[in-house]
Amino acid sequence: MAEDLADILHELIIATRILANQKVLDAFGHVSVRHPHNPQRYFISRHQAPELAEVSDLVELNLESAPVKPTEFRLYSERVIHGEIYKARPEVNAVCHHHAHSVLPFCISGQQLVPVFHLPAVIGHVPFWDQRDEFGDTNMLVVKPQEGASLARALGPHWMVLMRRHGATVAGTSLRELTFRTVFGCENAALQSAAMAHGRVDSLSAGEIELSAAHSVRPPSTNRAWDYWVRHVEKAGLMPAKRGAAKSAAVRGGPKTGKKGRSPAKGAKANKRR
Amino acid sequence: MAEDLADILHELIIATRILANQKVLDAFGHVSVRHPHNPQRYFISRHQAPELAEVSDLVELNLESAPVKPTEFRLYSERVIHGEIYKARPEVNAVCHHHAHSVLPFCISGQQLVPVFHLPAVIGHVPFWDQRDEFGDTNMLVVKPQEGASLARALGPHWMVLMRRHGATVAGTSLRELTFRTVFGCENAALQSAAMAHGRVDSLSAGEIELSAAHSVRPPSTNRAWDYWVRHVEKAGLMPAKRGAAKSAAVRGGPKTGKKGRSPAKGAKANKRR
Amino acid sequence: MAEDLADILHELIIATRILANQKVLDAFGHVSVRHPHNPQRYFISRHQAPELAEVSDLVELNLESAPVKPTEFRLYSERVIHGEIYKARPEVNAVCHHHAHSVLPFCISGQQLVPVFHLPAVIGHVPFWDQRDEFGDTNMLVVKPQEGASLARALGPHWMVLMRRHGATVAGTSLRELTFRTVFGCENAALQSAAMAHGRVDSLSAGEIELSAAHSVRPPSTNRAWDYWVRHVEKAGLMPAKRGAAKSAAVRGGPKTGKKGRSPAKGAKANKRR
Amino acid sequence: MAEDLADILHELIIATRILANQKVLDAFGHVSVRHPHNPQRYFISRHQAPELAEVSDLVELNLESAPVKPTEFRLYSERVIHGEIYKARPEVNAVCHHHAHSVLPFCISGQQLVPVFHLPAVIGHVPFWDQRDEFGDTNMLVVKPQEGASLARALGPHWMVLMRRHGATVAGTSLRELTFRTVFGCENAALQSAAMAHGRVDSLSAGEIELSAAHSVRPPSTNRAWDYWVRHVEKAGLMPAKRGAAKSAAVRGGPKTGKKGRSPAKGAKANKRR
Repeated sequence: MAEDLADILHELIIATRILANQKVLDAFGHVSVRHPHNPQRYFISRHQAPELAEVSDLVELNLESAPVKPTEFRLYSERVIHGEIYKARPEVNAVCHHHAHSVLPFCISGQQLVPVFHLPAVIGHVPFWDQRDEFGDTNMLVVKPQEGASLARALGPHWMVLMRRHGATVAGTSLRELTFRTVFGCENAALQSAAMAHGRVDSLSAGEIELSAAHSVRPPSTNRAWDYWVRHVEKAGLMPAKRGAAKSAAVRGGPKTGKKGRSPAKGAKANKRR
Repeated sequence: MAEDLADILHELIIATRILANQKVLDAFGHVSVRHPHNPQRYFISRHQAPELAEVSDLVELNLESAPVKPTEFRLYSERVIHGEIYKARPEVNAVCHHHAHSVLPFCISGQQLVPVFHLPAVIGHVPFWDQRDEFGDTNMLVVKPQEGASLARALGPHWMVLMRRHGATVAGTSLRELTFRTVFGCENAALQSAAMAHGRVDSLSAGEIELSAAHSVRPPSTNRAWDYWVRHVEKAGLMPAKRGAAKSAAVRGGPKTGKKGRSPAKGAKANKRR
Repeated sequence: MAEDLADILHELIIATRILANQKVLDAFGHVSVRHPHNPQRYFISRHQAPELAEVSDLVELNLESAPVKPTEFRLYSERVIHGEIYKARPEVNAVCHHHAHSVLPFCISGQQLVPVFHLPAVIGHVPFWDQRDEFGDTNMLVVKPQEGASLARALGPHWMVLMRRHGATVAGTSLRELTFRTVFGCENAALQSAAMAHGRVDSLSAGEIELSAAHSVRPPSTNRAWDYWVRHVEKAGLMPAKRGAAKSAAVRGGPKTGKKGRSPAKGAKANKRR
Repeated sequence: MAEDLADILHELIIATRILANQKVLDAFGHVSVRHPHNPQRYFISRHQAPELAEVSDLVELNLESAPVKPTEFRLYSERVIHGEIYKARPEVNAVCHHHAHSVLPFCISGQQLVPVFHLPAVIGHVPFWDQRDEFGDTNMLVVKPQEGASLARALGPHWMVLMRRHGATVAGTSLRELTFRTVFGCENAALQSAAMAHGRVDSLSAGEIELSAAHSVRPPSTNRAWDYWVRHVEKAGLMPAKRGAAKSAAVRGGPKTGKKGRSPAKGAKANKRR
């Protein structure tokens, strides 16, 4: 079981490096994964540019986004985005918050993002959230639990939400599905902007969205893209050290007995590698 | 003769790496070549990101897009695109299907792609195909033989067809001609979009298209571009191992006697290196 | 104290490499830092592409932008931009002048740059300056002290000024704040242009600008971005040699006694590393 | 004198690599330099992607664009562009023909290119040429002497000419001035397109163009940019071997006596390094 946890934390770092290498994440943004054995907890890097995170930088938080064990690490001020979505959506096992340059024009213009080719059908309907509506003038960061809960309500049953004058938050049932949806959500945004400049945008029908999305979230598609992105992470010199070489604070600090992790929670399977 | 076949399979991998390195292909898309000695067969990679394909990943399919020999490889679900075009167009010896970001805006907006400078004159007239017209709501993939045949009919006697809300398919009499047409088709799309933003697009006359295309498909042009793209593939560390170092499943699995391949089919010459 | 000065000059070179690597600076543009112990002086590279500057290329100038010690180095003809801003704005300790491609369209079109997401709130209100208004036809360079003073007046109490048909000048209380503001000013420009193409631009409210900017200029934000950009400078092979390995002309030529630098000026603290 | 010639041929290769590395040239386009001792001759690579050219690939042509010595090299079919401009413009010592993606939208839309910031003032007035006007439907290549002469007439006393549905041709009094004008001509085009998308373009006044251009063509500016671009050529692994390591066909094939090159022609000085 510890093996499983280590695998997932390693995969979280790979997903983060992929998203950095694909220019979705830069100095800001963050990615998290739900604990595979305890759905009341999730893992996320300490406060830093996500590309720089190693497994040893991961902290384990409860769904109130408080650290499970005392830590001297500075934490992301916006971690409630993750905690509140995990609370509201039991089937979600991975979350990414980003400010990708392809998506931000929609957050600024208020134009509706719609799937314009088959691969990004996985974004489905993408609602907007404006922090100002409920909270007035703020520093625009989603810091308070009620702010995170408001964002989670705007996300509702969907998989991607645009935050006005801020960025986007994306959810997935697994890290690979999340990565696929996040990258193709960005590609869709770039291509929709380009088609808008042509003067006309043709989008997928409801039936096409449903059928295309159902096909794309299956492992043959998400793994094919994952393997390709991993190759590019390797070429960029960004591949993290192998599993086991580094351990997260959570794993390091955990009990040394053989008792832990005997009851894997429901979320575990969705995060399995293939 | 086996030598010729190995050369062509090696060139298929190089063409694929060029198209990946030129950002035409990403995790998705595929490239194929007709068997040089048997026009009823073609070679294509097993299911994976095309940039990762080696000669040993190639499978030999008949024009029904079924494997000639039993294989455990997962195959591209859209391979009928290739088979149906080879069936309909005897002079075509190489096919590429892609979702390049330069071309997709036209697939989304429905704007007509037209040659806007001399080098892409080789795209000629570019028709549209909308899978929805004939098949209604689908998962947008060209999987059934009749879907592939419909696309081949839309292509007609032309060399490039745009697929609404999906991508493009390009054909050539040889791998080098295909590569040239595919790359310059993408460059034409990017430049036409930029000129559209200027408010006015001037395109080549019918006579200019005919004369320019006739010049560009000659080996001095296609080889000059090929050599340049190969150099960039080398610099990107993407050059496949030399011919002979790896053999395709087809070649490996073939008879060991000296009898095979004595009657090279008509398609062979167009695929020769220079 | 000499230690502090060497640290700051080293940091000036890193900031310059970051801005070059982030495509803000190219063959042209320059970055300076106020002397940490003497507010009447500042450091800037000799005349050359800023990316190529080493600590040993730095010269020490007074606020009239004249070298403190005789030098054979060719100096930037536009160095009065820096001197006149340091003169007018005691709280400014670092200045960057650039022609970034993201910002120039605003200098050419005259469109107002406004913060369109939270991170660039640090640009605040961005005034325009047109050298032609006061000086008629010139070679467009800010060479005369009165030209620099005019630009400083246009900047007024703000932190970024756009120069019509020329570029931008940005100020900061420290090198890290300057770097953060310069990079995110460019990103804001690119994203605002993209949103303008969507037909509508929603910008931060006055309250959001104030609250977001106050958050972003704090070290946790500027250091997080700095560490990320430094990693990319390292990966690009652009990291300067370690502090102490090279000394600026100013430090080299200074007195060898232990007396100098005993009265650090007010500006020093703001330039400290963390 | 031979030393001078070798220096200039080496510099021609560097200029070509700079223009390739700056994405002005790709598989197509070419750069030439006038013979420093004989204004009736010029040097240009044999037919190939310009980035791949070495000094040993250079051929010496007369102003009819015929090789001075028999050669087995395939020559560029468009070399008359160079010969006819050298014939018409004695002060021109270097020429570049390219299809840069930044400039082509203007060739396609017919929009006038105008200097929009100070550095590209060196492009001055940029006329259009349409091969169709005088020659009707062609393959769009400038192959016949009368086609080259027509283009040279369109260039007139200017330094850059746009060719409708084709590309651009740029001239300079030296290789460094040519390189500076070519690169900044492309940057101007990209930025003008971006400003056009903002809805308004403000360009330099006639007086600003004259004063800015006069400043930019001086060696401190052209050398500063050259040194920067050379550094990037080095980082890209594109720097040619040192002078003397390779000799052009012309130099190799020349007389072995000490008599040659005693009367350097007028054009020589303008091509000197600094």
